[in-house]
Amino acid sequence: MESASTMRPASARSLGASTFQGTGRVRFVQVAAGRGGRATARRSGPVAVVAEDRPVIIGLAADSGCGKSTFMRRVTGVFGGTPTPPSGGNPDSNTLLSEMTTVICLDDYHCLDRYGRKEKNVTALAPEAQNFDLMAEQVQAIRDGKAIQKPIYNHVSGLLDPPEEITPPKIYVIEGLHPFYDERVRDLLDFSIYLDVSDEVKFAWKIQRDMAERGHSLESIKASIEARKPDFNAYIDPQKQYADMVIEVLPTQLIPDDQEKKILRVRLIQKEGNKNFDPLYLFDEGSTISWIPCGRKLTCSFPGIKFFYGPDTYFDEEVSVLEMDGQFDKLEELIYVESHLSSTSAKFYGEITQQMLKNSGFPGSTNGTGLFQTIVGLKIREVYERISQKEVLPVS
Amino acid sequence: MESASTMRPASARSLGASTFQGTGRVRFVQVAAGRGGRATARRSGPVAVVAEDRPVIIGLAADSGCGKSTFMRRVTGVFGGTPTPPSGGNPDSNTLLSEMTTVICLDDYHCLDRYGRKEKNVTALAPEAQNFDLMAEQVQAIRDGKAIQKPIYNHVSGLLDPPEEITPPKIYVIEGLHPFYDERVRDLLDFSIYLDVSDEVKFAWKIQRDMAERGHSLESIKASIEARKPDFNAYIDPQKQYADMVIEVLPTQLIPDDQEKKILRVRLIQKEGNKNFDPLYLFDEGSTISWIPCGRKLTCSFPGIKFFYGPDTYFDEEVSVLEMDGQFDKLEELIYVESHLSSTSAKFYGEITQQMLKNSGFPGSTNGTGLFQTIVGLKIREVYERISQKEVLPVS
Repeated sequence: MESASTMRPASARSLGASTFQGTGRVRFVQVAAGRGGRATARRSGPVAVVAEDRPVIIGLAADSGCGKSTFMRRVTGVFGGTPTPPSGGNPDSNTLLSEMTTVICLDDYHCLDRYGRKEKNVTALAPEAQNFDLMAEQVQAIRDGKAIQKPIYNHVSGLLDPPEEITPPKIYVIEGLHPFYDERVRDLLDFSIYLDVSDEVKFAWKIQRDMAERGHSLESIKASIEARKPDFNAYIDPQKQYADMVIEVLPTQLIPDDQEKKILRVRLIQKEGNKNFDPLYLFDEGSTISWIPCGRKLTCSFPGIKFFYGPDTYFDEEVSVLEMDGQFDKLEELIYVESHLSSTSAKFYGEITQQMLKNSGFPGSTNGTGLFQTIVGLKIREVYERISQKEVLPVS
Repeated sequence: MESASTMRPASARSLGASTFQGTGRVRFVQVAAGRGGRATARRSGPVAVVAEDRPVIIGLAADSGCGKSTFMRRVTGVFGGTPTPPSGGNPDSNTLLSEMTTVICLDDYHCLDRYGRKEKNVTALAPEAQNFDLMAEQVQAIRDGKAIQKPIYNHVSGLLDPPEEITPPKIYVIEGLHPFYDERVRDLLDFSIYLDVSDEVKFAWKIQRDMAERGHSLESIKASIEARKPDFNAYIDPQKQYADMVIEVLPTQLIPDDQEKKILRVRLIQKEGNKNFDPLYLFDEGSTISWIPCGRKLTCSFPGIKFFYGPDTYFDEEVSVLEMDGQFDKLEELIYVESHLSSTSAKFYGEITQQMLKNSGFPGSTNGTGLFQTIVGLKIREVYERISQKEVLPVS
């Protein structure tokens, strides 16, 4: 116990578990700070102290055309190396391998190919088109350290090709439409992410890609989105309740009646209570904050950048939300923002900025999608380290 | 110059004057931090390095009935001791002495007593009722280290009593209706404060005091406020443009259509660029922030507490505004808030809380008036230390 007069301002940041005595003089006991200098009473740091020598299983759910592959390139970039398809195998394999990670696409577990779906009149979103028994069995096998013969769905031909062998990696990422649909698969995941792009933004992206780049008509794009909606709402969307983190992509609120949908408001919804990671926060954990960093020390061009952070509930569960509206147009803005985020799982100050710069050619590099995807990559590294009790060196 | 990978999170707080080179790797130069750990490009810390051995002159402007005496008790409390009237002098003296401070009331410079004002049909607010020549001459004399024979306005009799001798103190505070009205007096001030209570709150306070405690009627209170208004608006209110700090007291915005006016929204408007003090800030200097500290780590009763901080302009001058809406109902809330304020001029962590506790019987102790008055006291200490280059030990 220290008297107030010997406390230095530097120790004044966090006060979660202080107790007070006396009235004329303030005395308090400060609980030892957890990871990243936080002092909290709720959490006492990593719980998994017994190392588990097994692949860590990560699930990423998102609709097609929502930037899953960019997301995966950001995540694997945190671990270094360039992800490549299995060498000498099927050139249409959906799998990407790097030294530490293997990313597989759950479309490979289609039990109906393009013609079978047409025949039975079901979409690729329907559970009837997926082989969940095999998916559960093979994810369990990988988790148990066993190699699998995973089917390949050929996106070019629309047919099921002969399987490829997948050996257990350090980090196994299953990405696709149904990673949390089947309870058996869901229960095998150490960390789960849902990329939730709002209809307005999805529509603007599809127009950009399918109309500008592929010559589709506006009507056909609208029709294809509408046709997907019933099954999407029935089978894909409800999975977000199971995610540890949801990245919501919405139109900006900084420009009234914005029609362009180029500036995005992106929300990172972080579930509380997963022992494998700590949610990140802005300034003061657990309070409610809005922050416009652009001002005297940092100048930004129109429409600026606005952050929000605060506790909330999501499907009746306790979450912390971090929101970024607007986009970075100068490097200073990105590193300034990084400097005010806490519990990011970065290993050194500037790591987020460094990752963003390295991948600056990827879509979303100047807004919250790129920022939060990069942070998710760091969180996955933290999850791996907590479970394996092995340190991953940062890459440059 | 350090490479990003060797920077530690602890150094990540402030980034004002960083420069960047390269793209794949972040390199930057960090300018040495100023007072209190801030790193800014704009200010380079205290400028007055040559000690001035003279009384420091402080001005406090406020209407009567707005809590000037409570304010002064909070300010002098920072320097310790109990302020007392000059011993053996006029029992109706308005002066308060303590070891370091002398507080005089500018009503003593009335050139017209109650009867003279009645005869000439001027109010106590009118410049014609003040002897500004003598005020300027005597403040200058004190600043020059000379004793003065200051008149006494007797508030009981309404007459001018024989003068009292005032010797130069370390800190000389002139409080009253016109401390910044006369340019000669204004130019002698090292630090100036205006207490700006909104009409709605003033009215609620007067009802409390004059109706509940003194038995006046609601109509007479309204009439007396209305009668004062023209002269107040003409002669008192415009002085706030000259203040280094304005404390604005407004009704709460936390309770829609609040009628009670017991919960207050208090704004501390801090002028930028006075070399004798640094404005305090919340979380991130120069940005715009709203903060509801009540959440996961801190629980508060209805209607809670809300802070705002941001740059603004005030009478065309650059200011920083810190606002507190709501009130503290537990000690934890006060010390939690203190822990997130920076550049407060406190000498140890907890000093604001300690001062607030010591004076917890004073009006406004649970809201922004008490908090900001206490902070003004600490700023006055900082002004004194910068000018005199002498250290003042904190009192307990």
